[in-house]
Amino acid sequence: MATLRDVAREAGLNVSTVSRVLNNRGYISEEARARVDSAMKKLHYRPNEIARSLRTQNSGLIGVIVPRLSHPYYASSLHWLMKRFDSAAYHMLLFDSENNNDKLWQYLQYCESYHVDAVVLMSNLIKMDKKKEFSFPLITVERERGWADALVQCDNLNGGRMAAEHLYERGCRNLIQIAGANVPGIPSDRRMTGFIEMCDRLHVKHREFSTDEYQFDSGDYLRFIVDILRRFPDTDGVFASSDMIAMNVEKAAKQLGLSVPDDLKIVGFDDTKIAEYAEPPITSIHQDLPAMMSTVVELLPKLIAGEEVQKETTIPVKLVKRGST
Amino acid sequence: MATLRDVAREAGLNVSTVSRVLNNRGYISEEARARVDSAMKKLHYRPNEIARSLRTQNSGLIGVIVPRLSHPYYASSLHWLMKRFDSAAYHMLLFDSENNNDKLWQYLQYCESYHVDAVVLMSNLIKMDKKKEFSFPLITVERERGWADALVQCDNLNGGRMAAEHLYERGCRNLIQIAGANVPGIPSDRRMTGFIEMCDRLHVKHREFSTDEYQFDSGDYLRFIVDILRRFPDTDGVFASSDMIAMNVEKAAKQLGLSVPDDLKIVGFDDTKIAEYAEPPITSIHQDLPAMMSTVVELLPKLIAGEEVQKETTIPVKLVKRGST
Repeated sequence: MATLRDVAREAGLNVSTVSRVLNNRGYISEEARARVDSAMKKLHYRPNEIARSLRTQNSGLIGVIVPRLSHPYYASSLHWLMKRFDSAAYHMLLFDSENNNDKLWQYLQYCESYHVDAVVLMSNLIKMDKKKEFSFPLITVERERGWADALVQCDNLNGGRMAAEHLYERGCRNLIQIAGANVPGIPSDRRMTGFIEMCDRLHVKHREFSTDEYQFDSGDYLRFIVDILRRFPDTDGVFASSDMIAMNVEKAAKQLGLSVPDDLKIVGFDDTKIAEYAEPPITSIHQDLPAMMSTVVELLPKLIAGEEVQKETTIPVKLVKRGST
Repeated sequence: MATLRDVAREAGLNVSTVSRVLNNRGYISEEARARVDSAMKKLHYRPNEIARSLRTQNSGLIGVIVPRLSHPYYASSLHWLMKRFDSAAYHMLLFDSENNNDKLWQYLQYCESYHVDAVVLMSNLIKMDKKKEFSFPLITVERERGWADALVQCDNLNGGRMAAEHLYERGCRNLIQIAGANVPGIPSDRRMTGFIEMCDRLHVKHREFSTDEYQFDSGDYLRFIVDILRRFPDTDGVFASSDMIAMNVEKAAKQLGLSVPDDLKIVGFDDTKIAEYAEPPITSIHQDLPAMMSTVVELLPKLIAGEEVQKETTIPVKLVKRGST
């Protein structure tokens, strides 16, 4: 089997340069990278990750836990996180907690067992008295920080404000906000806070609703929304705390014979593909997932090295106007 | 640190039972599982996965490579695969090849380095002369088998036939088929073959189109479809080889002032959420992802143990009728 030294010889570079390429550390020219790459391929060189992990205590593995893999927001988040991992030579050990705290707990234990370098948590945080249950650093994304080492989020508060303001500007005076989950530590809290704050400032009537279940797969959610719109027929604008909910509001409006945007205007949140695909396409608060995931991957090596980092990073959001308003 | 023996004592079970629970092998009662679970939690017991990997040569890690994480079909596939992994105590080392063969090659090498037990490949297969480049068994899903050890697919051929037959039954006589990618080893080939076969049998006029690029994110795809529909205004039915394409056909029809299903009927493939969300909802050929992923996870331990398995498994599809036809 080829060694690092063989690769260096084949590439015509010294061993430390090859090592830098393999570990993605410091400046490496594109040419050097290409030469190492082709030498590795030629010699079928493969660094043994597990052996390296035991030697350096760095496995290169990052545990990632999402609450629902099939939800377009998480699929899109993972897509961007994976892209950033790729540039940083991290690998993703992925878990889907299905919003189940027992599973989440078990997955965090698996992460420990696999000696992951860190965990990125997009699922709910388990409340624990002692932080140091786990030896890896933890970053939460769009979840409460709790005992995590760092938090990366979008500006949910401002997003809520922007939604209310936009609906007001479009002439709406009877607003409703529908949140997807009534679970502590979920960002829709802050979206709602911002929404209420702006409604009060503008003296607009507003009502807030949320369900305990985050079941976008079932028809229950649609029925729940139809019911709300029936009970409050004066509603002329809805802020949904996700595009998935906004799409269901659109479907509910259709069932009730309401025209969007003429009778009812809708603003979603996340700016996922769902907002684009919907008919009419949905105005949405855009989360800058590329920037958020870049921040995560910038924080990781510092956290892994035990350095102090900024505890909370908030990335700005923007309003993307579409047919629903 | 607690040992397996401590857990067994705490749970009031013998060591072999605890071991079976941990390795998810053989029959285990729910009660035993619960007792082991609570004993593990109480004692903060964590099996050391990497050490176990070096000892038993089984890491419990399965490499999974998809071509596009953010595509709803792959998000949904991963969701089901993850569920099956969970029951079998496998863990997912996930890679997104972004349809790039160099990346795919590199990821397969990473899989080797991490001593994965096997790889599940949903991305294109790299043609290689020598199979035994990698030491792990390989299963492809909805891709050519090539040098892989096993293939799991849905009945693409029959799906194509069903689409053509359904459009014919709904009165269409000028059909078009639009495939998403013109890449070898992709299942839309067989979908097209089935479609053509049935059209010929029914003496229905048909035309086939495909693009080289699989870029559902860009507007190019929509323009490409608008262009086709403009060039062939007598078209009354479209079979799209994915729901994503079907949704774009719906958007294209709208741009051209065509009413779906009155002027144009559309059948998609995969039966992803996209088909449900679309307006009107899209008739689609349903892939039984739960059954396909069950098959994958039934094959894995046999392949890992070096046993002979069925080389190709084809899972039936069914037509799900919706508003677009």
